[in-house]
Amino acid sequence: MLEGAVSAHRKYLEPIKGSQRALVARYGPRAGKVGLVIGGGTGHEPAFLGYVGKGLADAVAIGNIFSSPPPDPIVQCALAASGGKGVLFVYGNYAGDVMNFEMAAEMAEEQGIPIRTVLTTDDIASSPLEDKDGRRGVAGNFFIFKVAGAACDQGLTLDACEAATRKANDRTFTVGVALEPCSMPQTRRHNFEIGPEDMEIGMGIHGEPGVSRERIRTADEVVDAIMDNIFKEMKAQPGDRVAVLVNSFGATPMMELYILFRRVEQRLAAKNIVIEANWVGHYCTSLDMAGASISILHLDPQLTELLHHPCETAVLNIN
Amino acid sequence: MLEGAVSAHRKYLEPIKGSQRALVARYGPRAGKVGLVIGGGTGHEPAFLGYVGKGLADAVAIGNIFSSPPPDPIVQCALAASGGKGVLFVYGNYAGDVMNFEMAAEMAEEQGIPIRTVLTTDDIASSPLEDKDGRRGVAGNFFIFKVAGAACDQGLTLDACEAATRKANDRTFTVGVALEPCSMPQTRRHNFEIGPEDMEIGMGIHGEPGVSRERIRTADEVVDAIMDNIFKEMKAQPGDRVAVLVNSFGATPMMELYILFRRVEQRLAAKNIVIEANWVGHYCTSLDMAGASISILHLDPQLTELLHHPCETAVLNIN
Repeated sequence: MLEGAVSAHRKYLEPIKGSQRALVARYGPRAGKVGLVIGGGTGHEPAFLGYVGKGLADAVAIGNIFSSPPPDPIVQCALAASGGKGVLFVYGNYAGDVMNFEMAAEMAEEQGIPIRTVLTTDDIASSPLEDKDGRRGVAGNFFIFKVAGAACDQGLTLDACEAATRKANDRTFTVGVALEPCSMPQTRRHNFEIGPEDMEIGMGIHGEPGVSRERIRTADEVVDAIMDNIFKEMKAQPGDRVAVLVNSFGATPMMELYILFRRVEQRLAAKNIVIEANWVGHYCTSLDMAGASISILHLDPQLTELLHHPCETAVLNIN
Repeated sequence: MLEGAVSAHRKYLEPIKGSQRALVARYGPRAGKVGLVIGGGTGHEPAFLGYVGKGLADAVAIGNIFSSPPPDPIVQCALAASGGKGVLFVYGNYAGDVMNFEMAAEMAEEQGIPIRTVLTTDDIASSPLEDKDGRRGVAGNFFIFKVAGAACDQGLTLDACEAATRKANDRTFTVGVALEPCSMPQTRRHNFEIGPEDMEIGMGIHGEPGVSRERIRTADEVVDAIMDNIFKEMKAQPGDRVAVLVNSFGATPMMELYILFRRVEQRLAAKNIVIEANWVGHYCTSLDMAGASISILHLDPQLTELLHHPCETAVLNIN
């Protein structure tokens, strides 16, 4: 899989010292620029390697299916991404990733590279607001990586890159809904079981339990449940601008995503919230799981500028 | 669905006279340029509306799920796409589409717009070589639309646009493999049945029968069977260049597509055929069908230039 992925995307990235577990962006890292390293398990394609390229992430460390990469490829990424101004690690808040990226951060700092870390925690269904730091990072990574990559590419300091990324994470809200499990290639089994007429709101991208399991409802009702949760946390005022990502978990086709998007727009419009930009498609999947997630980035002027900053990656090309 | 799709992609397209069945590219049609109209049933997203935009298709007519659009929206598309130099219709060779697009062509010509038609027939498993004109158009549409859109955008004559498109169709070879059926939203039933350990090579994008149903084989073996079929028809010499599309039918994740791509590249490399450009992902789907297709465009200098010509659409951005 990695051989195919690396060669399919060779226009944007290349292996670091021959390792397909550590990939660096062509024309990404450069002297005087903060480096951006992302990573995580496979099974979420096009995340994470689709977000590597000029103007976005400088390097990606790749683990096994739904597993963190070990520290070594992460350190290789840090070395490759370093331009002498420090390196930012941005990845989802999962125990395995935290352990491995923290070890890698120590090892990279021993080699003289200052490391800062932003854990993504956009999945608001994964833990209550009082435990915001315990939340998982999911498809909203798309926005958080984009902002981080743009801040780094603009030549901001490590402090400023970290601050912009942290702000993007604080202002990104995701809720998913699962309809069918994925099939794990290692075991040839489903990663969870769910009745044919049931759905689970808030389920994570590895099948982590959500907030409620119930009978399937209409697309509009599902979006309403998701947006109600997001509106509880997003302090948006009339006239505010957002970016929207409607993401398939894998097997849910674009036709259904468009139906979801329609209702998202209606709900935002009812509050006079303007969609500045949107994406609908496969951006952070869970193998062949059926379901979708909705992510909203609550913009401010800086985030808007960073969102539109040019980048060239397999998934996202902005010029 | 159409409301959501039109509003998700409003950056690239807009309804013609308020009809969501007929969409025109923003900044696409212009005086002195041949217009390009594409279209077909829904259920194949991001085909066909994802290919509408400056430098690619000027307008798209949209039918119900797996059904041709009726003549009226096609005529609207022809009128909207016309820049006084004629309009090219490019669509897959299916009886319903042929009937409706031919009626629309007559109606548009009555209004003074010269129409030329290229039927796409890239699915080499759909009929033997002796019946090349009886073949179906499938994911290789991606390349044929791209070439047609670039020829139109370059300001070529209607004759030259038609000739380039016809050449692209003659040099595009697709074979698909199906592992599981899709679920039809209208009926809530599968569109065909296949055993859990079986696959069907050559199956069409609406579940049309393929060339062989057999036990599932490894990814490499499946690619070998597909590429052997393609090599029988593609008269490529060592040093020739191709474009490659590895397309998911819907539920097959990118991880599996990368495994297929790896073997495609190996098979091409063994013949000293060079990959000029490649795409791996969801480009022409069949709702949530599991399976994939491989399309190869055998390039020549003109096709290479047209392939790289800039375009701006929801699916494809080349600058």
